[in-house]
Amino acid sequence: MNYYPVSIRNVIKGLSKLPGIGEKTAERLAMHILRAPNDEALKLSRSIAELKEKTKLCTKCFALSDGDICDICSDPSRDRGLLCVVEQPAEMVAIEKSGAYNGLYHILQGLLSPVEGIGPKDIRIDELRSRAADGRIREIVIATGTSVEGESTASYIAEAMAQYRIKITRIASGVPIGGDLKYVDQITLRRAMETRYVL
Amino acid sequence: MNYYPVSIRNVIKGLSKLPGIGEKTAERLAMHILRAPNDEALKLSRSIAELKEKTKLCTKCFALSDGDICDICSDPSRDRGLLCVVEQPAEMVAIEKSGAYNGLYHILQGLLSPVEGIGPKDIRIDELRSRAADGRIREIVIATGTSVEGESTASYIAEAMAQYRIKITRIASGVPIGGDLKYVDQITLRRAMETRYVL
Repeated sequence: MNYYPVSIRNVIKGLSKLPGIGEKTAERLAMHILRAPNDEALKLSRSIAELKEKTKLCTKCFALSDGDICDICSDPSRDRGLLCVVEQPAEMVAIEKSGAYNGLYHILQGLLSPVEGIGPKDIRIDELRSRAADGRIREIVIATGTSVEGESTASYIAEAMAQYRIKITRIASGVPIGGDLKYVDQITLRRAMETRYVL
Repeated sequence: MNYYPVSIRNVIKGLSKLPGIGEKTAERLAMHILRAPNDEALKLSRSIAELKEKTKLCTKCFALSDGDICDICSDPSRDRGLLCVVEQPAEMVAIEKSGAYNGLYHILQGLLSPVEGIGPKDIRIDELRSRAADGRIREIVIATGTSVEGESTASYIAEAMAQYRIKITRIASGVPIGGDLKYVDQITLRRAMETRYVL
């Protein structure tokens, strides 16, 4: 580190705070940026400065968004009767990439965790209630993870939504495609057996 | 990519231009920066913007430097009679890290390469000549790499310096420490044999 001038050291320090970037890698990246065209370095710098400033949460579904309403919520081709509840934006992105879903989302930004003091007020369940209450949604797919918190949040939401005339579903768990049965853990296998479906 | 708002996509695009950073990693880094404290993201952004602007080449040795004269050239504890010639700043850093050298440097910023049309004028050999001519240097250690270009640049410099009363040395090549002789390539082994020294 000390073998570089301060201007380079600052970049190395900043980059090595990122996950998975050690000091060696940061050094290599800094030297690359130094050699890159001026314009490229400035673009990268500007995009990082604007990242937090310009990225908002959609006021309807709480997805990451450039504007007040995200692209998905404002897309007329989306099925507005279908709502998928996920924990974080990353899970929404994963489902979008699968191409298997064409409804709207509701991003909780967390999971219920009594141990960490995270209750229903903290994860936008009130907002989910008002969306459910307006009568346009016919199905809510709960796609929280299969951790203890994910499962208990799913149960809590299913109960909270029981009062509305909405079909509540849970994303399936089971043997991964291409996975070998003998390497699948017992809990997953039991779940796969319990939720078996008719062909 | 398209699943993210433009503000995030810009960061992903910028980061994935860096060497060894694919789109998946860039996504992960962008999400980290988004969650990081505001101050941290701005510091990183600013350091990148200032990198090219504030990093200069030392007017004496052509190392990367904050000012006109680099830290090493202005360090009174350095041996001013000893000069080490390297190709790039990275090699200088490697030698500094080894802790085995306490003289000054001369960074060529390239190697002679007739194929690519790089001649002595392009790699600061004139500047090396004037440093050699001023009479204070007693030894020049040529530490260019052992590639064809590194070797021929070394020979060229050795010849060019012959007219001054300066000892010209070449950094040793040979079997790496901890390396197994049977895995060392023949050319390295031959060099190690030819440059063997008396214990």
